[in-house]
Amino acid sequence: MSASERPPTGSRLVGVLGGMGPRATVDFYDKLVAHTPADTDQEHLRVVIWADPSVPSRQAAILADGTDPSPWLQEGIDRLVTAGAELIVMPCNTAHAFVEGLVPEGVQFLSIVQVTVNAVAARPAGPVGLLATDAALAADLFQSSLHALGRQVLIPPPAAQARLTSLITQVKAGTADRSTEEQLREIIAELDARGATVTIAGCTEISVLLGNTPHDLPHDLVDPARELALATVAHALRPAPISGAVTP
Amino acid sequence: MSASERPPTGSRLVGVLGGMGPRATVDFYDKLVAHTPADTDQEHLRVVIWADPSVPSRQAAILADGTDPSPWLQEGIDRLVTAGAELIVMPCNTAHAFVEGLVPEGVQFLSIVQVTVNAVAARPAGPVGLLATDAALAADLFQSSLHALGRQVLIPPPAAQARLTSLITQVKAGTADRSTEEQLREIIAELDARGATVTIAGCTEISVLLGNTPHDLPHDLVDPARELALATVAHALRPAPISGAVTP
Repeated sequence: MSASERPPTGSRLVGVLGGMGPRATVDFYDKLVAHTPADTDQEHLRVVIWADPSVPSRQAAILADGTDPSPWLQEGIDRLVTAGAELIVMPCNTAHAFVEGLVPEGVQFLSIVQVTVNAVAARPAGPVGLLATDAALAADLFQSSLHALGRQVLIPPPAAQARLTSLITQVKAGTADRSTEEQLREIIAELDARGATVTIAGCTEISVLLGNTPHDLPHDLVDPARELALATVAHALRPAPISGAVTP
Repeated sequence: MSASERPPTGSRLVGVLGGMGPRATVDFYDKLVAHTPADTDQEHLRVVIWADPSVPSRQAAILADGTDPSPWLQEGIDRLVTAGAELIVMPCNTAHAFVEGLVPEGVQFLSIVQVTVNAVAARPAGPVGLLATDAALAADLFQSSLHALGRQVLIPPPAAQARLTSLITQVKAGTADRSTEEQLREIIAELDARGATVTIAGCTEISVLLGNTPHDLPHDLVDPARELALATVAHALRPAPISGAVTP
């Protein structure tokens, strides 16, 4: 993006709680840089990234009584705050099931779920396709908020949902290829056939898979990583809020 | 990369002094993740990135009596060490002119220049093309070390060097396109015509421009960002060295 608005002088230091997974953090940081209005290095935001891929599986914690990842997330938040972060974001949808209460007063936390729901609210009415991990679905990260907007939520049928889980695992393993992306497109086409007017790519690994410029999709896609990047830029360039509440 | 070697249990926390520029840091982190042997999130390295694009221009400091960037680099190193970094890398070639003496005892610093020179030493003999900023050339980051290997160093003629500077600025501004890349290929072709058997893409913005899989190049390219990523993975998975010396 070329500089239409600048400069970040006085902008707030952004903390990124990442590593869940690492490729999703690369993708988010890439989008954050791409959406920052800047012509030179010096106009970009100051960012500190704590990428801890050792955080126990969020899926296992929600679905299978696995280790609670909260202490790892708390450690990451503490390190980011110590490093000076004034605004914290976490480019992992599923981990948002654990983050409530972990961010100290006075530090703003931008929720990827909230910015995504806001983005859906700004689109034309109609059923919303939801691509997310089984754990994110079980934790009701998105559904109630979408219902509150009066939106019907469409999730893939069980076989397709199982395939989606496998695709996410492939992205994490670095083995995703053109056929992985093709299978994802088929899942989206099925949602389209059922009437979805917009689909949420509600797992940052799906964002990685679709890249920056998804094409040939039958309907509009909301990319939470992109929405979070846009919101992060907007909030980092804006004066600090009065309270440390979760916004926007 | 699929997991042939694992796991990073006991691996050292990697600190990345980044933001110079931001896109080069994205590119480096992308390569670091891609070159880590891991099938799951949990097998990846723990990484903390301090991305401060407000570091004053390294070029201006070397060539035009601009502000010394050392205090900014020192602040970044201090924050990375405070966050727990045990091994520090900096994906910016030119900034290496300022880093000597800034890394505390007991923390390892891997030099992008040194790993690049090591990579050249492992290639067949012959003249080495060098694509770097005017400042990196003025600071003799690479030339003496390459001469010490018995290598002739070829730099672009003045008009092409000026064009290279402009291409780097385009990457920093996010305005690089296919024609930018084409111009870079022409500069490399000219080095090839003069006998280069390998060329160093000695500025991380050039690495960004060429992407992960440069093709159609007339001879082999050494990508310092890739070499640094490989060395970082190797050293992070290895026990800590006895001294805090700059290695390898």
